[in-house]
Amino acid sequence: MNEVKSYIDSNQQKFLDELMEFLRIPSVSTDSKFKSDVLRGAGFLEGALKKAGVDLVEICQTAGHPIVYAEKIISSDLPTVLVYGHYDVQPADPYELWDSPPFEPVIRNERIYARGSCDDKGQLYMHIKALEILNQQGVPPCNLKFILEGEEEIGSSNLNLFVNENATRLKSDIVLISDTTIIDNDTPSITIGLRGLSYVEVEVTGPNRDLHSGVYGGAVANPINVLCDMISSLIDNKGRVTIPGFYHQVKELSTDERAKVAEAPFDLGKYQQEIGITDIQGEEGFTTLERTGIRPTLDVNGIWGGYTGKGAKTVLPSKAYAKISMRLVPDQDDEEITRLFTEHFISIAPKSVTVNVTTHHGGKPAVTPTDSMAFQAASNAFEKVWGKAPIATRDGGSIPVVSLFSEILGIDTVLMGFGLDSDAIHSPNESYGIFNYLKGIETIVLFHQQYAALSK
Amino acid sequence: MNEVKSYIDSNQQKFLDELMEFLRIPSVSTDSKFKSDVLRGAGFLEGALKKAGVDLVEICQTAGHPIVYAEKIISSDLPTVLVYGHYDVQPADPYELWDSPPFEPVIRNERIYARGSCDDKGQLYMHIKALEILNQQGVPPCNLKFILEGEEEIGSSNLNLFVNENATRLKSDIVLISDTTIIDNDTPSITIGLRGLSYVEVEVTGPNRDLHSGVYGGAVANPINVLCDMISSLIDNKGRVTIPGFYHQVKELSTDERAKVAEAPFDLGKYQQEIGITDIQGEEGFTTLERTGIRPTLDVNGIWGGYTGKGAKTVLPSKAYAKISMRLVPDQDDEEITRLFTEHFISIAPKSVTVNVTTHHGGKPAVTPTDSMAFQAASNAFEKVWGKAPIATRDGGSIPVVSLFSEILGIDTVLMGFGLDSDAIHSPNESYGIFNYLKGIETIVLFHQQYAALSK
Repeated sequence: MNEVKSYIDSNQQKFLDELMEFLRIPSVSTDSKFKSDVLRGAGFLEGALKKAGVDLVEICQTAGHPIVYAEKIISSDLPTVLVYGHYDVQPADPYELWDSPPFEPVIRNERIYARGSCDDKGQLYMHIKALEILNQQGVPPCNLKFILEGEEEIGSSNLNLFVNENATRLKSDIVLISDTTIIDNDTPSITIGLRGLSYVEVEVTGPNRDLHSGVYGGAVANPINVLCDMISSLIDNKGRVTIPGFYHQVKELSTDERAKVAEAPFDLGKYQQEIGITDIQGEEGFTTLERTGIRPTLDVNGIWGGYTGKGAKTVLPSKAYAKISMRLVPDQDDEEITRLFTEHFISIAPKSVTVNVTTHHGGKPAVTPTDSMAFQAASNAFEKVWGKAPIATRDGGSIPVVSLFSEILGIDTVLMGFGLDSDAIHSPNESYGIFNYLKGIETIVLFHQQYAALSK
Repeated sequence: MNEVKSYIDSNQQKFLDELMEFLRIPSVSTDSKFKSDVLRGAGFLEGALKKAGVDLVEICQTAGHPIVYAEKIISSDLPTVLVYGHYDVQPADPYELWDSPPFEPVIRNERIYARGSCDDKGQLYMHIKALEILNQQGVPPCNLKFILEGEEEIGSSNLNLFVNENATRLKSDIVLISDTTIIDNDTPSITIGLRGLSYVEVEVTGPNRDLHSGVYGGAVANPINVLCDMISSLIDNKGRVTIPGFYHQVKELSTDERAKVAEAPFDLGKYQQEIGITDIQGEEGFTTLERTGIRPTLDVNGIWGGYTGKGAKTVLPSKAYAKISMRLVPDQDDEEITRLFTEHFISIAPKSVTVNVTTHHGGKPAVTPTDSMAFQAASNAFEKVWGKAPIATRDGGSIPVVSLFSEILGIDTVLMGFGLDSDAIHSPNESYGIFNYLKGIETIVLFHQQYAALSK
């Protein structure tokens, strides 16, 4: 047994206990009532990084939640790895669907159940433990820098300014992020494509007050019915988004590239069974992996209006609302898509209502290179630890910071994530496998060693 | 000045104080947390009826909220009027849109602001004050019976059984109800048609848990998008409901009958301005008064699903819900329409989701006769008190008990309401004009006198 593995084995309980402590902090960034908890999350990281042996750690204030910056510099001759992660989490509601409270982590069936266990506290914390091991075993083979933010789940709106203002300090050779998944525990993979995001909120207003649906129904436009009509019209019967210009910048993949996407093992029956559906649905002419990996899409993430309590109320409401997001692929631009959506949505509103569109955060789609030294190092690390070379995949999710680092700092990213699709991130009962957590730490240590070796 | 008017003038403050006390009771029938308040509402009526001089009053238990029954019998030679009203109210939410708390009645600009001020506590209480006056002036000219229920806003589900079991006791010559509107304070009117109601709640289920919309979006049917598609398809681009069979039983009106509907004064500009809309919308080929008076319709009364809090959450939810109601006209049957809706809604669901439809209360549409002695008495009363003969109108709302009394007891109804469309019933800032309240009491007293005179 090698020294790394042996250190992890003997420190397993400590590694778990520390993560559990981190997970007990409800650092929900979107809801201001958790503001002090988000701050506590940053404080926790400051302490953990110090203990893991960094030279310097700072809690950097922003206009929103703080960014934790840390570094361990060995020598200017060594390559520098910039680790990015986020310590904020998604809201945990609906709370009633959790089998155990989201911020009281528990272990069941070798899995850690808690909001953020996988996304991204668990995956972030692996990097701090990897540094601890590297320090423990002697001198780390690379310089390490950490940039850990508290606003990823709300669009990283203050990260851009911070990275711009600290470009010199953040200078590195590669960005390393663990916030993605592998195919399954027998099939390691590295994500090379991520979708971008445009997220809007729409408000449809009919009459100036709630009306009695008996007195006015049939003669006055009902904003809920109108909103349903408008949303329904956004996707045609071939599963294509109808916003003019939506597909103009979409890079169509070659037959070869599509064949590569098809190489990832995929069992439709298992997929359907795992999420409890009897039929899939999506854009005509594309497979499920293509629909989530290489095609843009539009989803309503929330809708509300009128009476939603128990029983019946015969109201023709004044307003109806929806939160709508679009996942984007290269070379769609999130700001351009948000503009196209807004123009189109306002243009299709009947004269009987008024429409207001506001913008939440967005992010550009990204594809990471597969011919770089860092990708090779990640691939080697997986192969050594998991016994199999990883498959390159395109994921449906978004990590907008990938293009931010590329554009501002000119640095590529390696997405070395260890989650599973079934971890239920953003959902009730989010969990992270202990196997993935420990195996991930080991793989990250190996990455640094491999990257240093290849850089010589 | 006649004696009736003079009694009302000198008791105005008392009449208002008593109504305010009644309005302070939050008798919301649909929400079980107000159960004891609904009971207090019944208790208040018991006391008020006793004070007004009934011979007998009983709080009759049902499977739900109680029914208050009372009578004042003078002689079997006199005609008997059965007064119906309801002391339960609609929920007051959204509370934040009220200018003053819904259950702390206040008077502003000669109007009483409170939930239930018009619908139906204010209109019901006029009948108790009319009895007080009749008793005060000597012997009432008719026998009076009162049936006051606490479940009108939730479909009167226990009224049917009560009326069946008490048919002998309830035997009367006419039902008198004040739960409708007049055209305006210069244009009295009597409602002769009311729409029926079918009210359903639908649940669309996609995946067995909330999913990350980045990971699954585009490949898995989103129940909110599906629900919007399904709702959108329920009304075609001519404003017609697409449920097969929906219009089969609709009685088409003759040209003469439609000309009568058009006689009611209607100012489209004022109508639009009052509710703050710039364009009306409805079934092609019909006027606004026809759309609400003689045509059936379908409205979504509430919709919800996914993340509805502040900020953004990229969730592809497991479920989406809507409350949908259909207003019905003669001879549509509410149970038949509910069945047609359910069958159709399930049939249009894509295989990627499952659909569940549950039924809330319904009610049959009704048309009341205009050639009866009671209608004549009501018309005379209006003419004497308001100085103008009332216009016969068809209203959009529903009072399902009208057909219940007709079917079980074989008794016709006169709908002598005194509200205004602008009273904002079922909405925030519901109010009732003091003018309407006091004028209504006077008109009701006159009705009894006129009805007794015509019956001789």
